[in-house]
Amino acid sequence: MATEPRIAIDAMGGDEGVRVMVAGAAIAFQRHPHLRFLFVGDEERIARRIDEHPELRPISEIIHTDQVVSGDDKPSQALRKARGSSMGLAIDAVKQGRAGGAVSSGNTGALMAMAKLALRTMPGIDRPALAAMLPSLGDNDVVMLDLGANTECDANNLVQFALMGAAYSRTALGVQRPRVALLNIGTEDQKGIESVREAAAILRATQGLPLEFKGYIEGDKLSRGDVDVVVHDGFSGNIALKTIEGTARFVTDLLRRAFTSSLRSKFGFLISRPATELLKHHLDPNNHNGAVFLGLNGVVLKSHGSANAVGVANAIHVCAELVEQDIVGQVQADLAELRKLESATKADSAAPAASIEDAQ
Amino acid sequence: MATEPRIAIDAMGGDEGVRVMVAGAAIAFQRHPHLRFLFVGDEERIARRIDEHPELRPISEIIHTDQVVSGDDKPSQALRKARGSSMGLAIDAVKQGRAGGAVSSGNTGALMAMAKLALRTMPGIDRPALAAMLPSLGDNDVVMLDLGANTECDANNLVQFALMGAAYSRTALGVQRPRVALLNIGTEDQKGIESVREAAAILRATQGLPLEFKGYIEGDKLSRGDVDVVVHDGFSGNIALKTIEGTARFVTDLLRRAFTSSLRSKFGFLISRPATELLKHHLDPNNHNGAVFLGLNGVVLKSHGSANAVGVANAIHVCAELVEQDIVGQVQADLAELRKLESATKADSAAPAASIEDAQ
Repeated sequence: MATEPRIAIDAMGGDEGVRVMVAGAAIAFQRHPHLRFLFVGDEERIARRIDEHPELRPISEIIHTDQVVSGDDKPSQALRKARGSSMGLAIDAVKQGRAGGAVSSGNTGALMAMAKLALRTMPGIDRPALAAMLPSLGDNDVVMLDLGANTECDANNLVQFALMGAAYSRTALGVQRPRVALLNIGTEDQKGIESVREAAAILRATQGLPLEFKGYIEGDKLSRGDVDVVVHDGFSGNIALKTIEGTARFVTDLLRRAFTSSLRSKFGFLISRPATELLKHHLDPNNHNGAVFLGLNGVVLKSHGSANAVGVANAIHVCAELVEQDIVGQVQADLAELRKLESATKADSAAPAASIEDAQ
Repeated sequence: MATEPRIAIDAMGGDEGVRVMVAGAAIAFQRHPHLRFLFVGDEERIARRIDEHPELRPISEIIHTDQVVSGDDKPSQALRKARGSSMGLAIDAVKQGRAGGAVSSGNTGALMAMAKLALRTMPGIDRPALAAMLPSLGDNDVVMLDLGANTECDANNLVQFALMGAAYSRTALGVQRPRVALLNIGTEDQKGIESVREAAAILRATQGLPLEFKGYIEGDKLSRGDVDVVVHDGFSGNIALKTIEGTARFVTDLLRRAFTSSLRSKFGFLISRPATELLKHHLDPNNHNGAVFLGLNGVVLKSHGSANAVGVANAIHVCAELVEQDIVGQVQADLAELRKLESATKADSAAPAASIEDAQ
């Protein structure tokens, strides 16, 4: 595409702030040489870091502010500070069309609240969702949503998440017809909670969607790569994602203990080093960094607070892809299609509710 | 204690049926030489397996039936078959006092439905819960409940689960004052869903319970061993537990791939073998086998369908501990204490509901 997306970068958030945000932009620029940056934060510190990456100078602008939303601020406090903060101004740049998307490593709750307030939910979407990518044993990364934007969801929310997640998988990962599943506690129709069963019935009944609906998926299959998108409410999704992180860390900690338990095992570990480095690469969260708020009139990426420059570059990369491929427009088109298909299904069927009851 | 518990064993369930159930009993008998067994199932096949473990002969009885609840039966179908099946007769033995507890490797849903119908929920408990143990980085195993008996729970259910889980940890693991936490998506008071916030407020307000309430725990901290009991509804709990299983398998699969990717890494792996065997031992689900239905008038243990003899022995061991320590009586006593403390709290406070609102 011929667009020249400028990405607004909240340079102040995260554990290491300006340094990794600018270094991450430099890495992303190598991959996307048409990118432009709008750094928001302490002008002097940003300029100093840009001096370390002179190639960024001609393509970067700085918006100065010394106000920062702290990691400890509650969303309500953050919103009060929002206007003039680096996070608020970065989102504002998206709202005003000065930037195609924004990336921040700041407080997730505050970012979500500000993004929602400034950019508003897109027409046809009742609630935005937070989506992230998960590594899998397959060749594909798996998109998971919602991860905590909505603790409770009804069936329509979940159906909308399915559409948005599929659009994300298509746009950011190039999957033509994403396989979508609902997270549940069994694979039989009658399993789980009502919202999930109802969402399954709608997705099953609506033929012609730009996705392949695969029914339910259980927690032990998330990392297998059998599907491209996993849909859930923000409560169980957040628990699943954090449980994955914690368990991966648990197993690698056990492994480290095992390998350092004797001289012999230390020696074996050294010999196997190249192999375990591959494992480390696969499990490194920086290689999957970047959670996106889907369903807003604009693209906002949350980079993990502890991400390094490679992680930030990944988040910027995802942001650039979503902007270039116009994910907002794609979701809009899919929603219009869903409405058309739903009314066609209703017109075809004398008792459209039957399909929902059958599935319960 | 001077009790002589007889354990009823559904010998027909699970992937391998009679062989592992009898072999598991033989291992458990070594650890608990006062145990007696009541095997239920095909008499001839059971007798043949007992011949392989002659020490079991004088302490075993057999109840013959050729009816078996299949793994594919839905709970409703299973209930119709229940009466005469090996699973139904094993539970019946507990109801009639012929056995102190029952162990089955059969269909979880069927076992739960039958156990509930035959043994009934104990007074003061609204809903029974399924509890299991999780290995941790600490010295302690962590009790998780509910794991799928109740997809949706209110605050009172969760408070009762907390009491039952603490009694389980005390009884089966010997933890004097179990540290109990509620699974949530953050640690701040206002996080999560209402039932969890309300349960936290009740547990925080009720001083004098035989447990230490530690507030909320997130999914990434489950395996750290910072608490002894984690309480959740059956939907998010089932998702968390299965996600732990799946992620542990994911990481070990990656590891196997890494170690077999080159001759050099294979060699390193061989050298490290004793260390990785330790890891395998820690992650082997057989060493943590046995999920218990808490809140019934009797002890029923679910052994995993794919458990080996060591796994079955673990389930029998847990069953024996719970019977010997009279977990049913302990939970009853704790419930009585809770009611006393609650009315004391109400009498002390002019506006008892305030504590709940404060926490939200």
